[in-house]
Amino acid sequence: MKKARAGLAATLGMSGLLISACAPAGDPLPSWNDGPAKQSITDFVDRVTNPSSPDFVPQPERIAVFDNDGTLWAEKPLYFQLLFALDRVRALADERPEWRTQEPFRAILADDREALDRMTLQDVVQVVMATHAGMTTDEFAAIVADWLQTARHPRFDQPFHHVTYQPMLELLDYLRANGFKTFIVSGGGRDFVRAFAEERYGIPPEQVMGSMGQTTFQMWDEGPVLVKQPAISFVDDKAGKPVGIHQFIGRRPIAAFGNSDGDLQMLQWTAAGEGPSLMVLLHHDDAEREYAYDRESHVGRLDAALDEAGERGWTVISMKDEWNRVFAFEE
Amino acid sequence: MKKARAGLAATLGMSGLLISACAPAGDPLPSWNDGPAKQSITDFVDRVTNPSSPDFVPQPERIAVFDNDGTLWAEKPLYFQLLFALDRVRALADERPEWRTQEPFRAILADDREALDRMTLQDVVQVVMATHAGMTTDEFAAIVADWLQTARHPRFDQPFHHVTYQPMLELLDYLRANGFKTFIVSGGGRDFVRAFAEERYGIPPEQVMGSMGQTTFQMWDEGPVLVKQPAISFVDDKAGKPVGIHQFIGRRPIAAFGNSDGDLQMLQWTAAGEGPSLMVLLHHDDAEREYAYDRESHVGRLDAALDEAGERGWTVISMKDEWNRVFAFEE
Repeated sequence: MKKARAGLAATLGMSGLLISACAPAGDPLPSWNDGPAKQSITDFVDRVTNPSSPDFVPQPERIAVFDNDGTLWAEKPLYFQLLFALDRVRALADERPEWRTQEPFRAILADDREALDRMTLQDVVQVVMATHAGMTTDEFAAIVADWLQTARHPRFDQPFHHVTYQPMLELLDYLRANGFKTFIVSGGGRDFVRAFAEERYGIPPEQVMGSMGQTTFQMWDEGPVLVKQPAISFVDDKAGKPVGIHQFIGRRPIAAFGNSDGDLQMLQWTAAGEGPSLMVLLHHDDAEREYAYDRESHVGRLDAALDEAGERGWTVISMKDEWNRVFAFEE
Repeated sequence: MKKARAGLAATLGMSGLLISACAPAGDPLPSWNDGPAKQSITDFVDRVTNPSSPDFVPQPERIAVFDNDGTLWAEKPLYFQLLFALDRVRALADERPEWRTQEPFRAILADDREALDRMTLQDVVQVVMATHAGMTTDEFAAIVADWLQTARHPRFDQPFHHVTYQPMLELLDYLRANGFKTFIVSGGGRDFVRAFAEERYGIPPEQVMGSMGQTTFQMWDEGPVLVKQPAISFVDDKAGKPVGIHQFIGRRPIAAFGNSDGDLQMLQWTAAGEGPSLMVLLHHDDAEREYAYDRESHVGRLDAALDEAGERGWTVISMKDEWNRVFAFEE
């Protein structure tokens, strides 16, 4: 496991070098149609990277932040991390016989859809705590890696970390080739996202922030370990996103990409910088190839942020109109 | 202020590129005597960067972590951030007349050495909260930058961010030239250290972790701001160091540099990695050029970590014997 990741990391590091050294010959964004979203992104990159432009930004300040759920990978029918947690409840059921009668675990194990639909936020937190704590950080990373190898998305029948948007993968590469440092700012757990971010997105763990639980350092017989505790220490959503960005990055991004009201404050914080800035929302309006949802959706609601994008002229990507290919796994 | 830092950042970025592109012709560590510490560091770097060595480490995993107080800059007569806080109490005294009679502020303003010597940890926290909160993050950064321009170290009569160790600056450059990513893991506040880390150490804010206070996102008339609150949210010391490293970096360092018992768990966590690792302690044994202190010191006590270094063969730098130059400001 460790060896495999090391080899992969080395490969990624080298391909990153190649990308930086050699300017791409063709279109760096082939999955994007020539539309207003692509235009606004490439215009912005041209302006901030041209040393003779009044909007030039020195390379160390080219910070780009990306939401993950619904921005880099899909988030339907439910946040993938919640599907992971439900799978973990099933996997642990034999060890936890009391769950057979204890809600919300009983409903999950019985696949009681009616009861599941009534699950409260507190129920969700209880399920996450029961499945994301009581183990070392190394053990958790191995469990997530194993799940990604075996679980499949119910609609697309692909490993979840393959249900990622090809146009966004191209965008990440394009920004990095132009001297941007790319960060994930996820409402999901950072330990969960780190399990695949380097392989899938080329984003190393030290550039992945997200919600997190408490962790304690313990000295065991075999040596020191970090043990995940059943308590949330940081929620990286809404106003938590700019707070987390300040704690983690310590300077303001110049480009921010999201898809829901949970990303609004991150976009506001980015927009309030002194220099040039780019604020982008992905609008899921493609029921045929992916999903169509916005103002009324429970998962990934896009309402206030869509209004503000309209008022302030932020870039809104229409998935249906602006992407000629949605997923990396499509031929 | 922002413009000046942008220009500086661009310069640093470029000099970083030059360092990477051109292998240094001479000794990259000229302020280090040819002794056991220098030998163990260069041996380690040779082993992990040689692709045909069994200890080769791919570049993305070459993570090196550095304590700040007493490791990169001095920490006597008191932690510099505490001296900053005391200066802030004096600067704010006119606005806070109640401090004239309220301990520990009265003692600070009266320079009552006897009372100051009796200050408890709770007093210190109170002084830090009173001087590090109630302002935006941008305002705080400007206050620290101004203090660094005007305040002077009582013994060396230099700006505090010049009371940095020349051999450690060379070491940072040397590691980066060998593909290491260098991080600060400070018990001090990350917002404080970030005010000079890029200029002095070539370490960008997103590679600086440290203790931190709570911050809230607020929408003011002039736009969104982050306001520093009088509450500590994370203490990056002792067991907090490996916890913070996991939260912030998400992978285990292969090299760790510290100088006190507060760094012990960071070194233990680094040593417990599967591959090669380098654990280093700086021993302040040079009363003539700097300070001599270890097991009995209140600031920067080095006791249990010194024992463990001896038992486990970790590298201990004798400042007196192994450095031919201590400070960057010395000719």
